[in-house]
Amino acid sequence: MTQDSKAAKTNPGNFFEDFAIGQVLTHATPRTVTEGERAMYTALYPARFALWSSDEFARASGLPRSPMEDLVAFHIAFGKTVPDVSLNAVANLGYAELKWLAPVYPGDTISTSSEVIGLKQNSNGKTGVVYVRSTAVNQSGTPVLSWVRWVMVKKRNVDAPAPETVLPELAKVVPVEDLVIPEGLTFENYDFAAAGEPHRWGDYEVGERIDHVDGVTVEEAEHMLATRLWQNTAKVHFNAQVRGDGTRLIYGGHVISMARALSFNGLANAQMMVAINAGSHVAPCLSGDTIYAWSEVLEKADTPAPGVGAIRLRLVAVKDDPTPKPLRGEDGKYTPGVLLDLDFWALMPK
Amino acid sequence: MTQDSKAAKTNPGNFFEDFAIGQVLTHATPRTVTEGERAMYTALYPARFALWSSDEFARASGLPRSPMEDLVAFHIAFGKTVPDVSLNAVANLGYAELKWLAPVYPGDTISTSSEVIGLKQNSNGKTGVVYVRSTAVNQSGTPVLSWVRWVMVKKRNVDAPAPETVLPELAKVVPVEDLVIPEGLTFENYDFAAAGEPHRWGDYEVGERIDHVDGVTVEEAEHMLATRLWQNTAKVHFNAQVRGDGTRLIYGGHVISMARALSFNGLANAQMMVAINAGSHVAPCLSGDTIYAWSEVLEKADTPAPGVGAIRLRLVAVKDDPTPKPLRGEDGKYTPGVLLDLDFWALMPK
Amino acid sequence: MTQDSKAAKTNPGNFFEDFAIGQVLTHATPRTVTEGERAMYTALYPARFALWSSDEFARASGLPRSPMEDLVAFHIAFGKTVPDVSLNAVANLGYAELKWLAPVYPGDTISTSSEVIGLKQNSNGKTGVVYVRSTAVNQSGTPVLSWVRWVMVKKRNVDAPAPETVLPELAKVVPVEDLVIPEGLTFENYDFAAAGEPHRWGDYEVGERIDHVDGVTVEEAEHMLATRLWQNTAKVHFNAQVRGDGTRLIYGGHVISMARALSFNGLANAQMMVAINAGSHVAPCLSGDTIYAWSEVLEKADTPAPGVGAIRLRLVAVKDDPTPKPLRGEDGKYTPGVLLDLDFWALMPK
Repeated sequence: MTQDSKAAKTNPGNFFEDFAIGQVLTHATPRTVTEGERAMYTALYPARFALWSSDEFARASGLPRSPMEDLVAFHIAFGKTVPDVSLNAVANLGYAELKWLAPVYPGDTISTSSEVIGLKQNSNGKTGVVYVRSTAVNQSGTPVLSWVRWVMVKKRNVDAPAPETVLPELAKVVPVEDLVIPEGLTFENYDFAAAGEPHRWGDYEVGERIDHVDGVTVEEAEHMLATRLWQNTAKVHFNAQVRGDGTRLIYGGHVISMARALSFNGLANAQMMVAINAGSHVAPCLSGDTIYAWSEVLEKADTPAPGVGAIRLRLVAVKDDPTPKPLRGEDGKYTPGVLLDLDFWALMPK
Repeated sequence: MTQDSKAAKTNPGNFFEDFAIGQVLTHATPRTVTEGERAMYTALYPARFALWSSDEFARASGLPRSPMEDLVAFHIAFGKTVPDVSLNAVANLGYAELKWLAPVYPGDTISTSSEVIGLKQNSNGKTGVVYVRSTAVNQSGTPVLSWVRWVMVKKRNVDAPAPETVLPELAKVVPVEDLVIPEGLTFENYDFAAAGEPHRWGDYEVGERIDHVDGVTVEEAEHMLATRLWQNTAKVHFNAQVRGDGTRLIYGGHVISMARALSFNGLANAQMMVAINAGSHVAPCLSGDTIYAWSEVLEKADTPAPGVGAIRLRLVAVKDDPTPKPLRGEDGKYTPGVLLDLDFWALMPK
Repeated sequence: MTQDSKAAKTNPGNFFEDFAIGQVLTHATPRTVTEGERAMYTALYPARFALWSSDEFARASGLPRSPMEDLVAFHIAFGKTVPDVSLNAVANLGYAELKWLAPVYPGDTISTSSEVIGLKQNSNGKTGVVYVRSTAVNQSGTPVLSWVRWVMVKKRNVDAPAPETVLPELAKVVPVEDLVIPEGLTFENYDFAAAGEPHRWGDYEVGERIDHVDGVTVEEAEHMLATRLWQNTAKVHFNAQVRGDGTRLIYGGHVISMARALSFNGLANAQMMVAINAGSHVAPCLSGDTIYAWSEVLEKADTPAPGVGAIRLRLVAVKDDPTPKPLRGEDGKYTPGVLLDLDFWALMPK
C-alpha cells in the first residue's frame, strides 16, 4: 500500500470546491440520547431550569415528561455536521433561522443532514463561504431542529474554478409566527416557587439588561467531556499540539451552554429556547477563563399557547471581568472580553 | 431601567433579618434523578458498595432494585436549600438529626422545603445563626430525607433589630429506635464475597479504628462536575475570582462522598447510611489535596430488620498525610490536616 | 484493638504465595450497567462507531438495541479482578484469548470470577508470575467475556516455598472459528453513510497501515473519572503521592479506549471488537500526553454471519509525535513513544 491509498481511508473533510448548490450531505453517526446525557449536561453546566430538571414540572406544563435540554438537541445535531461541513473551516461565521421543531426525549435517536444553500468564493481565491441548512430528525423522521450556518472553508486546490455566487436570503430574526411551540405546552399552572423566580413575562421590559452575577472558571477536562459528548471531534478542541501555543480552543457551544445556564439567575422563567436568530463567537475561550453572562431584552410577543409568552433575548458571555460594560465600543467593535453574542427567542409564563 | 430594577431580577439570597421562626421556604428546582446520576456518582467517587452497584444484590437484600446511593439523595436535597438558606452564609456550622426516610430510585423527583426553627443574632450585630429543618420529598410526597443544619448568615442591614433568640433542642445522636430501615430490607441472604469483605457487624468493636489506606488527589474539574450535578451553585466552588487567591473552595459534600467511598476498604459491609448525627467541615479542601480517610466505631445496636445491625461510625477525612494520628491534639483542637469529622449510623449484616 | 486487628479489616490483596493452581477467585461488586455508563463513555472518548451510538443502527444490524460499547464490558469486568489479582502486582505482563461472548445491554448486571491457571516463581525469589483466566457473566449467568492475563506479583514472604511451575498453553491468536458473533448480527442492510465511511471489509488489505490522524491530550480529571467508572481502584491511578514524582499513572485501559475511538477515522466500519489476541502496555501514559493511534491490518477472514467479515488489526497508540514510524526499531525494541500494542479481531461489513 502506498501513502496515497492509506490517506484514502481517513476523512479529509470537504474543501470549498467539494460543495455545490443543492447538494445534500447525510451526516454520520445517528445518536440515541438518554438519561445519561441529561445527567452529564447537569454536571457540565449550572443548569437549573425546572422544565429540564423535573418530570413533574414538565407534566404540569403539558408535556409527557421532561425533554432533553434544548441545547442538548442543538449540540448533538450540530456535532454531526462537523466532519462534513467544517473540518477544513477557517472560521464559523454565523447562524440564522435556528428553530426547535419538536422536543427530544430520552430514547430518541437523532440524525442530521444538510443542504448546501449558498456559496461564495473569497476574492483571495484560497477560501470560500459555504451556507448550509441543516435539519435534525428523530427516529420517526420528525424534524426536531433546523438551522442555517455559514463557514469559511479552505480550497483544496486554489486553481479550482470559482462556483457561481449564490447567497441565500436569511431572516434577521425568526418571525414570532414561525416559532414552533411544543404540542400541549401550557404555563397556566406554572409553579413559580418550583421554577425559582417570581418574574413573569410581563415583568420584563424591552431594553432591560440583566447581569447574571455568577461566574464559572472553565477547565480543559470539562470542555473536552462536553464536546465529546456531542461527538464533535474538531481537532482544535482536544489536541494541545495543533494550535502552536499549547492551548485548546473551547467549542463555542460550550460557551453558549455555560452562558445560558448562568442566565438562570435573573431569567429562571425563560424556560425554553425555541429559536436562535443570530449568533457570533466573538473571541476564543480558553481553559482558565472565567465566564460571566448578561442578557438584554430585545422584543416581546404573545403566543397562542395558554399562559405562554415569547421573549427575544440577547445573551452575552464575557470573560474575566464582570463589570457591566456596553456590548460594543464607540468604534462599533465588540468590547474586549466579549466571547459570545447570541440572539434567541425563549418561552416564558405570562 | 435602573440598576436597582435590574438587581431585582437576580437572586440576592436571604439575609439574617429575612428569616423568622416558623417560616417555610419552598426551594426551587425539583429534580428527577436517573441512571445518569448513578453513573456520574460512580465516576466521581471510588464507590463500590454492592447495594448501590448491583440491582441483583439489592433484590437479594429485599429491595425492588438498587436505589440511588444514600449520599446522592443528600446532595440533591441539600443543593436545593443553598439559594434560599446559605447564599449569604459566612459559615456552615453544623448538621444534626439527618435521617434517610425512604430510598430514592431512578425516576423519582425530589423537592425540598425548609422550616426556620432557630435564630440567634451574634453579639457583633453583623451576623446571626439560622437553624433550618429541611425535608426532601419524592413525587408522591413521601419524605425521603430530613435534617437540621445551622449556618451563620450576614445581615443586610446591621441596624435591623435582633429577633428573639430561639435555639432548637437537637439530639446529639439520632436514637437507634428512630432510624428508618427501608421496608423489606434483609441481610439474611447477604453475599459477603459479592460485597467484597468478610467482616460482619459482630466483627467490629466499639473504639476500633480503621485506616482506609487509599487516597485520592482531587481535581478542579471533578469537584465542579460533582457540585453542579447536585445543582448547588454556591459561587466559591466554581469561580476562581471570588476568593481572592485564585482557589476554588471544594464543596464539603464532595469530601464527604470521597471519604465515604474510601471507607469501603475496611467497611465494605457498612452498606447503607441511615442517619447523620453530626458533621463538621473542619478545614477547607482545595484542588491538589490528596484525601485519605479513617473511621472509628462509636456504638453498635441491633435493629428489627432480619440480619441487619446498626453501627455508629466517626468518619474522618484528612489531607496529604495518611500517617495515623489522633483526631484532636492535647489542646482539644483538631489535628492539622483534618478536613471532615462526620458521625453517622450505617446498616451492616449481622 | 491493636494495629494488627485493624490491618485485618482492610484488603491487603493477594501475594504470590496466596495463589494456587485451580483456585477460583470470586470477585466483589457486581455491577448493573445503564444508559449512564453509555453517556459517560461517549464523554470520555471520541467514540463514534454507529453500532454503539444508535439503537436504530443496531436494530438494522439484527440486534434488539444498541449494546454497551465492547470495551465498557471489558473495563467493568477487568476492574473487578484488580483487588484480588493485581493489588500487589509489579507489572501487568500480558493478555491473551480475550473473547466477547455475548453483548451487554443497559440493565445487565456483570460479575467476574477468575481461575488460577499458571504459576511461576521468578528466579530472584521475590516475585512470581500468576496466570488467571477470568470470566464475566451477566445476571442470567450467561458468560459475556473471558480472557487470560498474567501479572508479576510480589511475595509477602520471600522465604515462602516456590510452587510447582505451571505454564498454560495460550493461543497466540484466537482462531477465527472461535470468534463469537452475537446472535442475529447481520451487516446486510448496513448503512455506510450513517456509519461515516464507505470502506468495506474488502477494501482493506493485509499489511495496510492506517494513520488515524487525530490526537487527544489527556487530563488527570478525565482518566480518573474513567477508571473509577470501572470501579478499578488501583492506587497509582488516583493518588499523586504514591509514585514519588507526583504523577498519576494512567490506567492502561484508558489508552486502549482512546486509541480505539481515534481509530474511527479510517476504520469507522470496524464496528465490533470480538477478541483480543494480545496486548502490551509498552510505556506509561501520563496527564498531558497527546495520544495518537495507527492500525495495521494483520489478517482477514470470513464469518458465517450475513454480510459480516472479520478483520484482525494491530492498534498502536503513540504519544506526542504523530509522524508515522515503524513499530519497532532495528534492535527489535518498540520505537520510543509507543504506548500500546494491541492485536484484536473486529467485525466489518463485507
